[in-house]
Amino acid sequence: MSDSYAELTGLLAEAATLASASSLLSWDQETGMPAGGAQLRAEQLALLAGLVHERRTARRLGEVLASCEADVGISADPIVGANLREIRRDYDRAVRLPSALVRQLAETASLTMEAWRDARERSDYAAFAPWLDRTLELVRAKAECLSDSGSDPYDALLDEYEPGATARDVEKIFAQLRPPLTTLVAEVADAQPDSGSVGLLRLPVNAQQALSAWLVQRIGFDVTAGRLDVSAHPFCQGVGPGDTRLTSRYREDALLDAIGSVLHEAGHGLYEQGLPKREFWGQPLGDAAGLGIHESQSRLWENMVGRSGQFWTWLVPEARPFLGSALDTTTADALHRAMNAVRPGPIRVEADEASYNLHILLRFDVERALLAGDLRTGELPGEWNRRMRSDLGVEVEDDAYGCLQDIHWSFGAIGYFPTYTLGNVYAAQFWDAARREMPDLEDGFARGEFESLLRWLREKIHRHGRRWTGPSCANRSPGKLQVPLPCSATLIASCALCRPVKLPPVAAGINFAP
Amino acid sequence: MSDSYAELTGLLAEAATLASASSLLSWDQETGMPAGGAQLRAEQLALLAGLVHERRTARRLGEVLASCEADVGISADPIVGANLREIRRDYDRAVRLPSALVRQLAETASLTMEAWRDARERSDYAAFAPWLDRTLELVRAKAECLSDSGSDPYDALLDEYEPGATARDVEKIFAQLRPPLTTLVAEVADAQPDSGSVGLLRLPVNAQQALSAWLVQRIGFDVTAGRLDVSAHPFCQGVGPGDTRLTSRYREDALLDAIGSVLHEAGHGLYEQGLPKREFWGQPLGDAAGLGIHESQSRLWENMVGRSGQFWTWLVPEARPFLGSALDTTTADALHRAMNAVRPGPIRVEADEASYNLHILLRFDVERALLAGDLRTGELPGEWNRRMRSDLGVEVEDDAYGCLQDIHWSFGAIGYFPTYTLGNVYAAQFWDAARREMPDLEDGFARGEFESLLRWLREKIHRHGRRWTGPSCANRSPGKLQVPLPCSATLIASCALCRPVKLPPVAAGINFAP
Repeated sequence: MSDSYAELTGLLAEAATLASASSLLSWDQETGMPAGGAQLRAEQLALLAGLVHERRTARRLGEVLASCEADVGISADPIVGANLREIRRDYDRAVRLPSALVRQLAETASLTMEAWRDARERSDYAAFAPWLDRTLELVRAKAECLSDSGSDPYDALLDEYEPGATARDVEKIFAQLRPPLTTLVAEVADAQPDSGSVGLLRLPVNAQQALSAWLVQRIGFDVTAGRLDVSAHPFCQGVGPGDTRLTSRYREDALLDAIGSVLHEAGHGLYEQGLPKREFWGQPLGDAAGLGIHESQSRLWENMVGRSGQFWTWLVPEARPFLGSALDTTTADALHRAMNAVRPGPIRVEADEASYNLHILLRFDVERALLAGDLRTGELPGEWNRRMRSDLGVEVEDDAYGCLQDIHWSFGAIGYFPTYTLGNVYAAQFWDAARREMPDLEDGFARGEFESLLRWLREKIHRHGRRWTGPSCANRSPGKLQVPLPCSATLIASCALCRPVKLPPVAAGINFAP
Repeated sequence: MSDSYAELTGLLAEAATLASASSLLSWDQETGMPAGGAQLRAEQLALLAGLVHERRTARRLGEVLASCEADVGISADPIVGANLREIRRDYDRAVRLPSALVRQLAETASLTMEAWRDARERSDYAAFAPWLDRTLELVRAKAECLSDSGSDPYDALLDEYEPGATARDVEKIFAQLRPPLTTLVAEVADAQPDSGSVGLLRLPVNAQQALSAWLVQRIGFDVTAGRLDVSAHPFCQGVGPGDTRLTSRYREDALLDAIGSVLHEAGHGLYEQGLPKREFWGQPLGDAAGLGIHESQSRLWENMVGRSGQFWTWLVPEARPFLGSALDTTTADALHRAMNAVRPGPIRVEADEASYNLHILLRFDVERALLAGDLRTGELPGEWNRRMRSDLGVEVEDDAYGCLQDIHWSFGAIGYFPTYTLGNVYAAQFWDAARREMPDLEDGFARGEFESLLRWLREKIHRHGRRWTGPSCANRSPGKLQVPLPCSATLIASCALCRPVKLPPVAAGINFAP
């Protein structure tokens, strides 16, 4: 390797090490920080964001990058070439943002998240609105820095989370998803599976926690290189090589939520642990391909594994050491059916698989309108509630269960929500391909065999980092996307609703390696 | 305030914010980090240590400091003057250390702590010795940078933890403490208080944890500005304004250890919360006066409060909501006697009040010999065990219970141990003064009244930060130090052993404000 390339990767590694310190501070803010530490935390994160940004936009970085690009001896290598392509992408993007704005965004995000927490607890939208205004103002400034004149500012934001995607691409996909999803939700609403006495289960939180900790290990999460904690909002934070943090939450009457949530976060965690971070620390090749792909991994474990009958056949007897005889009043079959019940409700993270994407479609429209100024923050609750009624048939009685439910806008993440649905779409593709290659995959779940699936994901997706993203993808084997129909459909409607829908190739975002 | 002074304090605040991020990372390393994260954590801490050091030694900082010192209009102010005196002290010390050495020390410390943890678990001193050698080499290099020629390198290290103290001062104090302590331990060894069935108590860890969490609040620790967690080694980390972290540890058969430990750490925590950090962020006036004073606060709550009969009279009925009827088999009097039992053992942190300081005296001698090269690391276990036998009459059967028991040397802290005994000495002084001013202080403990003591400590000690340290102290009202005789002496020997011993004024280190 050339000296320039060694210097380049060294500079990126230092920036990543600093950024990983921020990442741990953010994890702590959600899991442990006392309320009194909020102001200092905001200052720490702002300071570190500025230092990371300085490093990622350093003139020297630009020089060595250009010198590597010009050196055909190294840039012709497919691995190094892909790395350079993505480093260039990141660099050109970063240098458009002034340091002061980056620091302001970080500090405002940290404080706004605290304000959001308070406001949501009291369902006090009015208290949150000024914070949202301030955040939108900074996010608009950011979009303006990142956009070429004449382009949609939303694209510039979306591009951070889903490299190469545009609002128009997302619109097209969502337009195709909306009709079949709406039909599906309506059709299954009156044909719920009978889940017997599952709804009456009350299980101690400690026992659910111990079961969850065991389960994540059982599906392959390495706890010597990660942990599982409790937080108000489950999440996964990949701090760095050897350190991936999961959180989940537990309620006595919500075993199914706990299992779904921990499988979801472990899916993210397995991806983080499967990325070649040690080899490519701070480089795109060691980094996630995008949030859509990240979400595909979590949804795959949550939905394709966790909502399968075979999974529950295996889990019920295995759960006995943790839950004792508590599950004796029910059956694996009833739990499986309960896990797949379709009941549209106000909360996205508790949504069933069928209505989930409708929550995302709503947020996509609303956040575009907010960014463009077509919807004022004062009008947000009204618009939100109107859409919940028309799209999902749900009455929102309280902003805490409405437009205040999600944390994303409070940290300035406009353009993030679409990646959830894209993730569902990718997951359906991956699942389809995996089952074609391993027809007895699901049978293995009934025996607690998850290694084949994980090995396949590691091989096809995880180890490649950000190698296959952006426009280069569309030119590979775009394949056919399927609407991510939920298992509930297969349960209830005998697959009659599983119509594959062709989507534009660009939506693929990434294509797993051949 | 002048522009220079504003710039000076701004520069210090930024360095403190960065340092506080390190502080949180260190807390996490002890409380939650998975083993796989050790290498990245070492790199994060090294990088941050370098960035903090750059800021604390910046040429611009030196310039504005000099300009403030020259400006009589501001330096004549007693508050600002004290601040400038201490900023100068820190700056002159910091500029002697090369950045590379600071980064190496931080990285080596982080990795050596992990190696120490492993080695201690397996009682494998041979595995730790090379790490200790490497650490000693770096610490010697540090001492050399900090020392004037001809001076004792140990002084330069001690000065970091106990500003202004020298090895000779410590020697003098320790020489005076050794004979009465040795006599005391021997005299009380055969006259143990009868603590009935206390030794048979078995209390669920969860219940002890809940009791501890309640207790720290009850004595005044603000949990909206701090938390209490579990770690293998109890400690307190003052992250910054509004964020002070305590840890403790629990064993079913060790309620008294749990209470002692949590009072100790809460004592540190109350000091951290009482320092004017928000007003003087990053400035000496917002910082602790030194580790001896810090330790005086923890030992005061642990020993003077927690080993008092009145405290137990109050606690036993109050503990019922947490422990149920578990304490019905014993009495407050028996618990009080058990808390004051004197039984020399191999472990410092479990030592009774009488023998505790003998552990420190041993460590002081051993670490000086290690630093000077008079004792090689290969000879450490033998020397340690010999001294344990001669000083405490204890046979060490296992290095995990011998020279591997403490974490300090693994993070390069040579010169730290003496501050534990100095803390005991200061605590005795403070306690003496507080009782003279408030003769019914202890009676209040029996009613759960701790506010007067905390208010007194806040007023006399906490709010002053590092205002009264170093040589300026000796010229104030040095007072008379007392040997910190344990409560057990008052219980067993009816105060016959409470002989005040005069110590050299310089040992005072700090004197509480008049």
